[in-house]
Amino acid sequence: MTIDPFLIVGKRYPRIDSKDKVTGRTKYLDDLKFPGMLHGKVLRSPYPHARILRIETARAERLPGVRAVVTIEDTPRVPFGSYRSGVKDELIFAMEKVRYVGDEVAAVAAIDEETALEALDLIEVDYEPLPALLSIDEAMKPDAVRIHDDAEGNIASHTVTVRGNPEKGFEEADLVLEDRFETPLQIHGYLEPVGCIAAWDASGRLTIWAPSQNPSWSRIIFSEALNVPIGRLRVIQTFIGGAFGGKLEQKLYLIAAVLAQKAKKPVKMVNTRDEEFQTSMPRVPMRIDLRMGVRKDGLLTAKEHRIFADNGAYTKYASAVVNLGTYRVDGLYRLRNIRNENFLIYTNKLPTSAFRGFGNPQITFAMESMLDHLAEGIGMDPLDLRLRNAAEPGDITAHGFHYISCGLKECFKQVSEAIEWKRKRSQKGSGRGLGISATSHVCGNRSFFPLFDGATAYVRIDEGGNVKVITGEVEVGQGLLTAYATIVAETLGVMPRMVTVEPPDTDVAPFGLGTWGDRGTFIGGAAVKLAAAEARKELLAVASEMLEADPSDLDCKEGKVFVKGSPEKGLPFHEVAATAVYTRGGAPILGKGTFIPNSEIADSTRYGNVSGAYAFGAQAAEVEVDEETGRIRLVEVVAAHDVGRALNRTTTEGQIEGATVQGIGYALFEEVEFAEGVMLNPDYLNYRVPTALDVPPITSLIVETIDPAGPFGAKGVAEPAMTPTAPAIANAIYNATGVRIKRLPITPEKVLGSLRKTKV
Amino acid sequence: MTIDPFLIVGKRYPRIDSKDKVTGRTKYLDDLKFPGMLHGKVLRSPYPHARILRIETARAERLPGVRAVVTIEDTPRVPFGSYRSGVKDELIFAMEKVRYVGDEVAAVAAIDEETALEALDLIEVDYEPLPALLSIDEAMKPDAVRIHDDAEGNIASHTVTVRGNPEKGFEEADLVLEDRFETPLQIHGYLEPVGCIAAWDASGRLTIWAPSQNPSWSRIIFSEALNVPIGRLRVIQTFIGGAFGGKLEQKLYLIAAVLAQKAKKPVKMVNTRDEEFQTSMPRVPMRIDLRMGVRKDGLLTAKEHRIFADNGAYTKYASAVVNLGTYRVDGLYRLRNIRNENFLIYTNKLPTSAFRGFGNPQITFAMESMLDHLAEGIGMDPLDLRLRNAAEPGDITAHGFHYISCGLKECFKQVSEAIEWKRKRSQKGSGRGLGISATSHVCGNRSFFPLFDGATAYVRIDEGGNVKVITGEVEVGQGLLTAYATIVAETLGVMPRMVTVEPPDTDVAPFGLGTWGDRGTFIGGAAVKLAAAEARKELLAVASEMLEADPSDLDCKEGKVFVKGSPEKGLPFHEVAATAVYTRGGAPILGKGTFIPNSEIADSTRYGNVSGAYAFGAQAAEVEVDEETGRIRLVEVVAAHDVGRALNRTTTEGQIEGATVQGIGYALFEEVEFAEGVMLNPDYLNYRVPTALDVPPITSLIVETIDPAGPFGAKGVAEPAMTPTAPAIANAIYNATGVRIKRLPITPEKVLGSLRKTKV
Repeated sequence: MTIDPFLIVGKRYPRIDSKDKVTGRTKYLDDLKFPGMLHGKVLRSPYPHARILRIETARAERLPGVRAVVTIEDTPRVPFGSYRSGVKDELIFAMEKVRYVGDEVAAVAAIDEETALEALDLIEVDYEPLPALLSIDEAMKPDAVRIHDDAEGNIASHTVTVRGNPEKGFEEADLVLEDRFETPLQIHGYLEPVGCIAAWDASGRLTIWAPSQNPSWSRIIFSEALNVPIGRLRVIQTFIGGAFGGKLEQKLYLIAAVLAQKAKKPVKMVNTRDEEFQTSMPRVPMRIDLRMGVRKDGLLTAKEHRIFADNGAYTKYASAVVNLGTYRVDGLYRLRNIRNENFLIYTNKLPTSAFRGFGNPQITFAMESMLDHLAEGIGMDPLDLRLRNAAEPGDITAHGFHYISCGLKECFKQVSEAIEWKRKRSQKGSGRGLGISATSHVCGNRSFFPLFDGATAYVRIDEGGNVKVITGEVEVGQGLLTAYATIVAETLGVMPRMVTVEPPDTDVAPFGLGTWGDRGTFIGGAAVKLAAAEARKELLAVASEMLEADPSDLDCKEGKVFVKGSPEKGLPFHEVAATAVYTRGGAPILGKGTFIPNSEIADSTRYGNVSGAYAFGAQAAEVEVDEETGRIRLVEVVAAHDVGRALNRTTTEGQIEGATVQGIGYALFEEVEFAEGVMLNPDYLNYRVPTALDVPPITSLIVETIDPAGPFGAKGVAEPAMTPTAPAIANAIYNATGVRIKRLPITPEKVLGSLRKTKV
Repeated sequence: MTIDPFLIVGKRYPRIDSKDKVTGRTKYLDDLKFPGMLHGKVLRSPYPHARILRIETARAERLPGVRAVVTIEDTPRVPFGSYRSGVKDELIFAMEKVRYVGDEVAAVAAIDEETALEALDLIEVDYEPLPALLSIDEAMKPDAVRIHDDAEGNIASHTVTVRGNPEKGFEEADLVLEDRFETPLQIHGYLEPVGCIAAWDASGRLTIWAPSQNPSWSRIIFSEALNVPIGRLRVIQTFIGGAFGGKLEQKLYLIAAVLAQKAKKPVKMVNTRDEEFQTSMPRVPMRIDLRMGVRKDGLLTAKEHRIFADNGAYTKYASAVVNLGTYRVDGLYRLRNIRNENFLIYTNKLPTSAFRGFGNPQITFAMESMLDHLAEGIGMDPLDLRLRNAAEPGDITAHGFHYISCGLKECFKQVSEAIEWKRKRSQKGSGRGLGISATSHVCGNRSFFPLFDGATAYVRIDEGGNVKVITGEVEVGQGLLTAYATIVAETLGVMPRMVTVEPPDTDVAPFGLGTWGDRGTFIGGAAVKLAAAEARKELLAVASEMLEADPSDLDCKEGKVFVKGSPEKGLPFHEVAATAVYTRGGAPILGKGTFIPNSEIADSTRYGNVSGAYAFGAQAAEVEVDEETGRIRLVEVVAAHDVGRALNRTTTEGQIEGATVQGIGYALFEEVEFAEGVMLNPDYLNYRVPTALDVPPITSLIVETIDPAGPFGAKGVAEPAMTPTAPAIANAIYNATGVRIKRLPITPEKVLGSLRKTKV
């Protein structure tokens, strides 16, 4: 029996921000009101593709209450894109052409939203419609018009990656399968729409308040787009009501900045739900042609994919999604012979970009679906096939990832036991089926933001014993603040609720890369832990004088600082803190921690150990399919995830459950419908995310591999827990019905249609 | 000829906050609006002294829109006072008794101010009036009722300080004069009324947004009064629209906190101008019996004063004003034999407290008035008498102050030359007169806040080259932010407007004692300078790698970092900053500076070198008096001040001019009228502060003694520049008319009355 050395880590505590949220105290962006603040609205293109012949704003400008009308003429016209994506295909407003229904043409700031909307109607725009390329097939036709002049064949990016010897791999295979899978555009579906307030001070410094996922980093992009030095830009993050990758830098912030500059007043802009759906940056839809080979003994010998991804009208992070996101899966099983070819294709639809999983859910759906058929082809249990090839600690993958901690096999073990895999799979004909799937993911990505991939945090203790974490890393709803409070509370021996962490302000916080790539806990948390340790050292040094004892003989726990073994003679934490401040000229205790994981930028072939740790997970689903109606009832989902260590069991389970639900939506429900490039269901009534009634019991199993680099061993879980859900469900449906649906979402119509074909 | 080594220090730059203020961008407290915010109003006593028999709040509580009604019953009832004043005579609301017209009885929070005001009318309070003691004479009568049960004779404090041998001093004098001087209550007269927003979060942590002069320190008082640990309190300073000592901790903040706690919503409270006048904490009125002896050769041999100060109903900082503030003057001239006796007397009037000069204007008015009569009595020019006794560098005063830098004689020299003292004083009978006066003041006071008197600041440079000063010290309108920006800009070689400094937040800033006792520039500025030097060191270390040069060979100026002698090959400042951040895991450059001046806590006899530096000044005034009407025309004021070094000539002159104008108001105009304890002129129409038409040309002369401890040699000037104005004017009037007015303000009525008496 091992004794748990922790008082707080690994226990169940409520999130430190939950009470304020449920009692309505948390101030979100839309709660902020500034004196003299104007309200901005955007005039958007009604055409998927058209030439702009004329924009006339005079009537709008004359409307009483209007303070500024802006178009491309009011901007520096510097093309920009996501940081180092290599594709700079955006401007703040459409210039000469519009490229999708929703493209920004002009904007108005007025004394209220009604006036701004009225003014939009008074802006006259003459368009000359152009052929609209509404699918990747249309866009790739040899005679297709170009959406962007410099993108030949409407190809935004094209990469080929070869590892080992794919030809030889396929030759060595006893069975080679090839198939096409398609994944849809998925809306992030966060509760809080995108919004911001932009205000310029008299010295020409711009401040943007926004629920930004990457406040520090976004300054680099904004600086470029607005042609304003980074130091003249300040971004203050407001509490985020959900992000999932959708709240990286937003064009709306730039539009607000341009309006505020012209109007010389603060300008607030908040998307309507309709705008959210039509102009946010949803998941990149992909058409994946996949080919895999397997030997009779279950060894996977080769994998080849060709992806055609739908970029929409502008690239944003889609090139990274396609070129960084889709090859993580190749390390999940020990693939050595690989050929990946990725095309990112412009279409006249809304731009797609980053979304939880970042390309991984798309490719994993394809590969994990095919694995079941490979297993079936060689007469092997699909679980056994996976275990035969599963990654293990110490592996260096084909793309150069070094796996230090890796609990993939343990995840398979736990998930299969919990769902009673062997027993249930041997029962046939009940209309029920079991499916299994897995995922691997990065925890940070040195290639994504090449300047660096690390984090710095400060832990500050003031004269009231108030402990504050100051970091540029970002809570997006995932519970990061609570994770940081947990790390600090454990290190300093105080309760988590005594630790405050707030959204970053780029004028106060260190540069933080923000939340993406599952880096928040692993990288940010490690920095916080180092900072807390330094603060603890400072605290004990002060206490050592007060207690006349050597610092090494001291400990702090439960709000006291004491000589080891004599907690009853200890000093209250806040008393030591007060002594520190009052005897040192008002200086708070300030521990600083910087953590830079042992990762590297991938080389020109995309080879390299891009992350300091990797997360793993496996999920199994049980379904019941009504063969008369095609209706799918999810009976149960079991999710086991190697999180390194759960800093807080409740919030870790919450992440797994939330991600699984999003995976269920991806698998079964979520789909956007277009007609002539116009979105037909831009609202939650017609775009179906899972409701409480759609969600089966989810069992979250936590596998702890105690990563040596992670804070207390922790890694990430927010993204990976979304990835295996859809293929696990697809595999369960196949198991139940013999029907393989290769195009998400798996609707009753598709199942019924396939069932009928099968039976014919 | 010395070469000016500075690019920015000592030059003229606009204040860094001025443009935002004049363009209406600066957000003051009343500009803040929070979701769900309620508005609070206070029910105040209409009686100067009365027993509370009953408070019935039920009707008010039932009024629609009312969210909370609070009285003493809703508070912890812990008596509090100013920090370590030794007098804890206040509660958040009146308990059992009210003690002045305006005393807080109850408060209401409602959805708007109108509803709150309506609810106040519905609170029923039964009072039993008690005898009202409306003057110190009435309060000191043997049979007077006690205003506070434990204050015998209504004495709030009584101290006697003896230095040397006063009896012997008076014996050695050739002339001894004795007289009574009276100084009035003076309203601070800032533009922005006191206000705050209080909000509790779900964890029970209270945040107060307020224009507080001492955010860190006020937490200590609030913690006591609210019975909440300091760590559960956060104070965020909002931009201050003037303070002058009147915005130290305010009871209004506590009332808002109690309302917010009960209503579970943020509560905003803002004083009306009427409330400001009747309940703010104006200058302590004093009756000063002064006795001084002088030898024929001009040597001052002894000084004795007995002060009766009008405390009003509660003590606040009045005891410090009387017991710390009034003995600074004793070091202005080389007094060795001193007896000071101070009585602070409770009356049934509004509490008095800290105000620019802090007791010094009161006693200096008396002493500097008397000096002219001593000079006259021994046939000496009043200027010569002063120069004969004036303090010099190296002096240790009777109370133990060590003067390191001291430009008093130079101030006298410059001021007398500028006003042409010798020439004009020799001209008689023009109806014009010249007067002169001086002051000495502390720069910080180790006895005022005994925990420590020092400051800590951080200078932070981010990846955009954005330079930010983080400190707990407080801009109150005096230009402190600009002073700090100047210090940092000079040290780092950037323009002052590239440096941002913001009002402190106790969750971010170091503990700052705040602005009082002229400590902001001398102590806070020295900390900022050390922090900037550390930041510079960090910056040059990064640049040394980039430029492949030794850090000691590098310099930074005009936005570049370069090898000395080769600025043209330099790197842009922001490029070095970006490299620092991106190569060090996101950590900004963060220089920390702590400055603790060489001062000591005074002993039990109030002896000790309480400040690390002392400021000096002299002023001369020329007046013209119409002997028919008593009308006084100020012809000119010349003010010379030893500021150590002027960091910015424009703002230093601005401080001298502003203080002089306030001194003019004190001398000639400002007076509150009462009837039965009710203030009769609680507004700017009837309480006359000087207008532009009342202010003569003011010549500001800057004497630079380059104090070795001050930042670039700077000391304070904000308070001392107010002190000598009134006596200089009084002396000029005496010189012009032969009439000595010993009771401020010097109105035409008083002059005319005295003139008529003289002529009889």
